[in-house]
Amino acid sequence: MALAHLSIVPLGTGSTSLSPFVAACEKELQLHGEGLKYELTAMGTIIEGDLDRILTVIRRLHEVPFEAGAVRVSTSIRIDDRRDKKGSIDQKVQSVKEKL
Amino acid sequence: MALAHLSIVPLGTGSTSLSPFVAACEKELQLHGEGLKYELTAMGTIIEGDLDRILTVIRRLHEVPFEAGAVRVSTSIRIDDRRDKKGSIDQKVQSVKEKL
Amino acid sequence: MALAHLSIVPLGTGSTSLSPFVAACEKELQLHGEGLKYELTAMGTIIEGDLDRILTVIRRLHEVPFEAGAVRVSTSIRIDDRRDKKGSIDQKVQSVKEKL
Amino acid sequence: MALAHLSIVPLGTGSTSLSPFVAACEKELQLHGEGLKYELTAMGTIIEGDLDRILTVIRRLHEVPFEAGAVRVSTSIRIDDRRDKKGSIDQKVQSVKEKL
Repeated sequence: MALAHLSIVPLGTGSTSLSPFVAACEKELQLHGEGLKYELTAMGTIIEGDLDRILTVIRRLHEVPFEAGAVRVSTSIRIDDRRDKKGSIDQKVQSVKEKL
Repeated sequence: MALAHLSIVPLGTGSTSLSPFVAACEKELQLHGEGLKYELTAMGTIIEGDLDRILTVIRRLHEVPFEAGAVRVSTSIRIDDRRDKKGSIDQKVQSVKEKL
Repeated sequence: MALAHLSIVPLGTGSTSLSPFVAACEKELQLHGEGLKYELTAMGTIIEGDLDRILTVIRRLHEVPFEAGAVRVSTSIRIDDRRDKKGSIDQKVQSVKEKL
Repeated sequence: MALAHLSIVPLGTGSTSLSPFVAACEKELQLHGEGLKYELTAMGTIIEGDLDRILTVIRRLHEVPFEAGAVRVSTSIRIDDRRDKKGSIDQKVQSVKEKL
């Protein structure tokens, strides 16, 4: 089980609005993200699950802006992979909140 | 008004648990983040507000792990600064959800 | 052809020194990076080549710190994938230098 | 002394070419980066020096694409701040190469 933070940004599209591209990626994630948990935030999408499945779905999501007409895409991925303990989206946030 | 995604990670602390450091940073943000809106996520903290105020508070948060004993800190910041339109944490997420 | 910036950092190892882990990743990249071009920098490794090959080798490199004893690893990847024009490590830097 | 990796990307400019923006940032860095060492790479610019000076110059560089007409800018900063030992661009690369 790993967590990943994902941001996919098309460059040179002529519009400053990214939400159509983000929505298209979210739809693809809904279609192909079986077994994964995900959460949309204002700065990206957090995905929780098996790392190989996460990377497979990210590879697919990276194509979405190209399919929508973009010719340059900048994709940022940050993986947090912890193997001494089960980490999850809920547990990580909870663990901090308990200390506040 | 800008948005920033922030992740502050101490290196070489000998413990895989980061939540005490994250909690200390959140407390500092509560103390010094007047005028800013912020949201804790499983992969970082999103901060919304005036960019100069955001950078000033990030500079301060970056010191928190050192004050807690760390001697190496990796801080990642991603700024999304849009000036044609008021962007906010809520508006960005809402704008994607409307298209789903 | 894509470019990727890669940074792999073990957390909680008890040592602030990362170079043994980076060196182990570089060795793995030398062994399994056939067909890819790569460049070590002070803040990560830049890899150039077919995107699927890049992601396959990154997946392998991500395991290296675990094999060396780490139990938590933070891996950051930034992909720059341009399909209107062949982008390369050399061409990108050259293109900026010509304008200076 | 800290190191920072910096990437400044305008969004929605209508051109996939970023090198004019990167070159403008580099010129600004040459003008205002006294006391800092910096290195242009294919995936960003690495800056070495006093952290406050680095952040001051980054704040200024972030404005460059706006001055060139962009209305949305995505700026990514990664700071590596080590206080147990003097880290530098050269030393970090050298330290890895010695182990290869």
